[in-house]
Amino acid sequence: MKKGPAKPRIVIIGAGFAGAWTAKYLQRKLRDSAEIELINQVNYFVFQPLLPEVTSGTISAQDAVTPLRQMVPGVRFRMAEVLDIDFDRQRIDLLQGSKRRLISIDYQHVVIACGQSEARDLLPGLSEHALSLKDVADAHHLRNVLIDRLEHADITSDPQLKQRLLTLVVAGGGFSGIETIGEVSEMLRRILRYYPNVQAHEVRGILLQRDARILPEMPPQLAAYAHRQLLRRGVEIHLNTGLRAVSKGCVELDNGDMIAAATVISTIGNAPTAMIKKLEQQQRVHLQHGKLAVDRMLRLPQKNAWAIGDVALIPLTDNAQQKSDYAPPTAQFAVREAQCLSANICATLKGEQCHPFHYRPRGSLASIGHYKAVGEVFGVRVSGLLAWSIWRGFYMLMLPQFVTQVRVALNWFFDYFMPRSVVQITTRGESCTRNVLYRAGETIFAAGQMVDGHYTIVEGEVELRRDNESACVLKAGAYMGSYMHQDTATKIELVAKTDCKLLTLRNADVTRLSQAIPALQKHFQQPS
Amino acid sequence: MKKGPAKPRIVIIGAGFAGAWTAKYLQRKLRDSAEIELINQVNYFVFQPLLPEVTSGTISAQDAVTPLRQMVPGVRFRMAEVLDIDFDRQRIDLLQGSKRRLISIDYQHVVIACGQSEARDLLPGLSEHALSLKDVADAHHLRNVLIDRLEHADITSDPQLKQRLLTLVVAGGGFSGIETIGEVSEMLRRILRYYPNVQAHEVRGILLQRDARILPEMPPQLAAYAHRQLLRRGVEIHLNTGLRAVSKGCVELDNGDMIAAATVISTIGNAPTAMIKKLEQQQRVHLQHGKLAVDRMLRLPQKNAWAIGDVALIPLTDNAQQKSDYAPPTAQFAVREAQCLSANICATLKGEQCHPFHYRPRGSLASIGHYKAVGEVFGVRVSGLLAWSIWRGFYMLMLPQFVTQVRVALNWFFDYFMPRSVVQITTRGESCTRNVLYRAGETIFAAGQMVDGHYTIVEGEVELRRDNESACVLKAGAYMGSYMHQDTATKIELVAKTDCKLLTLRNADVTRLSQAIPALQKHFQQPS
Repeated sequence: MKKGPAKPRIVIIGAGFAGAWTAKYLQRKLRDSAEIELINQVNYFVFQPLLPEVTSGTISAQDAVTPLRQMVPGVRFRMAEVLDIDFDRQRIDLLQGSKRRLISIDYQHVVIACGQSEARDLLPGLSEHALSLKDVADAHHLRNVLIDRLEHADITSDPQLKQRLLTLVVAGGGFSGIETIGEVSEMLRRILRYYPNVQAHEVRGILLQRDARILPEMPPQLAAYAHRQLLRRGVEIHLNTGLRAVSKGCVELDNGDMIAAATVISTIGNAPTAMIKKLEQQQRVHLQHGKLAVDRMLRLPQKNAWAIGDVALIPLTDNAQQKSDYAPPTAQFAVREAQCLSANICATLKGEQCHPFHYRPRGSLASIGHYKAVGEVFGVRVSGLLAWSIWRGFYMLMLPQFVTQVRVALNWFFDYFMPRSVVQITTRGESCTRNVLYRAGETIFAAGQMVDGHYTIVEGEVELRRDNESACVLKAGAYMGSYMHQDTATKIELVAKTDCKLLTLRNADVTRLSQAIPALQKHFQQPS
Repeated sequence: MKKGPAKPRIVIIGAGFAGAWTAKYLQRKLRDSAEIELINQVNYFVFQPLLPEVTSGTISAQDAVTPLRQMVPGVRFRMAEVLDIDFDRQRIDLLQGSKRRLISIDYQHVVIACGQSEARDLLPGLSEHALSLKDVADAHHLRNVLIDRLEHADITSDPQLKQRLLTLVVAGGGFSGIETIGEVSEMLRRILRYYPNVQAHEVRGILLQRDARILPEMPPQLAAYAHRQLLRRGVEIHLNTGLRAVSKGCVELDNGDMIAAATVISTIGNAPTAMIKKLEQQQRVHLQHGKLAVDRMLRLPQKNAWAIGDVALIPLTDNAQQKSDYAPPTAQFAVREAQCLSANICATLKGEQCHPFHYRPRGSLASIGHYKAVGEVFGVRVSGLLAWSIWRGFYMLMLPQFVTQVRVALNWFFDYFMPRSVVQITTRGESCTRNVLYRAGETIFAAGQMVDGHYTIVEGEVELRRDNESACVLKAGAYMGSYMHQDTATKIELVAKTDCKLLTLRNADVTRLSQAIPALQKHFQQPS
């Protein structure tokens, strides 16, 4: 594929705002004089701020993403996972294709713009039970979960279970927390009428915010406006309150309170991606606050290596020390960083001088659902429908083609008149092996419940009860399977005696595992 | 929830065309004088004929489904799985909620309209490797698979692999086979321009049809028109040819030919659902040709039990013997059966006489993609854009609200002008345990490939090769894991020595399994 010996090859890793815009600007500036390659794990760009709307069904998943191949024509796109960067040899190792073939490619310049990933191990139960909103699949999944809760709440006859099913907790009162709870409560409000046995007052939406106010990135008046709007819509806001732990049906707050909630969405915590962690372990890069420190020209210490976006720690002054001296991880900054970076790469190629990055943000906006937003644009504070329209306009401008823009605009327009769909399109099963956490006292199986899977205790103790009396205590390694159902299931009850962790498997998976691995056959046949 | 002692309760199982329309007609006729309950495993109605268009991206998944709660207002809807029907006690056992609680409900009349499920065990490898198009999740999945093949074909440097990735086989030349290959080849044609390294002539679409012509349900001239249209678009049609076996990268035809193809879609074979099978095992029902035989009034032999749709064998004459004496499994017939059935239930409630089912179909239509269809309506043959428009019009009429109709119509309109999106929205992982089949001689791992998972041989033998020479033969129980990668992966090659079956697991699942089950820890640590 090499088109000439003299053509420099610039490889960009990651296609978020930072990476995709770098590719765009470089392509515009260099045209055919360089080979620009964009590497990303998925073949689309996600407009993350719209994900809460995918969840609520305002827009379809297709509308929140843009195909990268259409977005940056002329740039070579590679769907692959980067494993390693050898800065000395200027070479990248990556895995591509469904068979994950290991391939190496050379570069003259490399731009690291892979963003950050979620820190799922911050709190107990977070990775097992909290939902997140980072990708379109997350948005879809959250939507299905919420509809599932309503479907179930509509038909259950257990009032405690119903309350738990109808309680939703969002952790984090920043942009994405606010947008999520705003959109979700709007969605629930609009679809409740299809669930005759669920009343509006039974639905609880709870927002947890560690700080003294929501939207700390915004001026206080605007945050107060958003706060009032959310309260008016029935959202409970707990300030100065964080999450301590999450389990199957329970949320523990950092003040010790417990809330029975079936659905928890976390918008807190970021960490370096697996690739960045690996580079650090191999001492190829050095991390500062979990990020790659660059100079004001956006250069890494390594030769011809650059970093921008959330993965990079970008100083805004020569003597950066406190948090406000560094570029914040927002889309607005990322696009500006991409502009500066592409200019600097071009300058380097021509042997000219690089320029330091500086940018004064134009403003910021947060959507709070129900056709309302808050924000500050060019120093002017806006709120309500006007702010919401500016917010949407910004996204419209990003769409790659005029007809797409018209279609998306019309969809938004129709949403105003149309009933919200309550379709729950199930994605094909989650991972078959799942760890499920229960707090001491939580019921794992109630009498009369179908045990249609296989459960192994990984940690903790479980009490088996018959006719409301303790029959025995099961410990780590003990195993419960669907054989229990035959006659006894209707009488047996399982309750967590201590906090405990169970591994769950589906029947189909157990069958396949037993067929392949003889050691397992024995394990699964032997009832504890 | 009981509103009066005298109100009869009619329970409908299944919400396809037959079940949903029965609910609709009964509600219209009985209003508040009966309690009508509709039970379905998902909360939406799928317009199956549109699924190929969801795959091709012409319409969004949301547009191919209708929320049942919006479709049949006034009917009590229950998202649940029916386990058992006790015809003597007039009681249904079902599982509901994410915790799958076992619940029993009573009925005065029961309508079984649960359709049929796919027969996945007809041929070796069908359940492991053939894709299907029964639900929206299938359509999504197929779309992702096709885009994945293109992404991979665009960057691979192995010509054999590229050809396999670009070969698609559709088994079955009936309505759904034709619609699938038509839509998919149209989709590929439109998105190929985003894949600069893939040429149109490299893409092979192959249709397998056991019969002497495609669309045997249609008049020969129309089938011939569809045949010509598909050939013109480059589809290869193999008549009198069936599938014998499917493996990871290969399709074996019943004439012994082998085709290297990465993607196989099966539209062949139906079987009773799990519930119907169970009822038969318990000798509660008797099956004829895998279906529930009803009389001409649509009654089952059991008291107050009825069956219609694909699950039922419905005689059209008093002395039905050959296939044409029974109602065919089409949407058109299902809707008419629902009409007759609801009238008969009302008559029974009033103590009046039931009427036998009879219907003369109005015509039939098959879409072949690219804004073309073929069909016969009221005895008149139509083809091309006109047929396609009638086809679409039929669906539009089914949509529950005017604004939804407008939105869907506009989306179809815009599709004409817009580029097709190539976004691959990955649904969260398939089942973690998967059996993968290889034919003797197929490469399982090529040198330089990343083994990022765990593989256990379930059946057959695998040859391990080093530097192109056989190093050893691995047999059932042998296990290969990602530890191989450390240094050796680039030199080792694994080739199927005989036909073989491997169980594949992902690393995250192996970790969870080993933590919970000590017997596995040993198994996974011990390299074969």
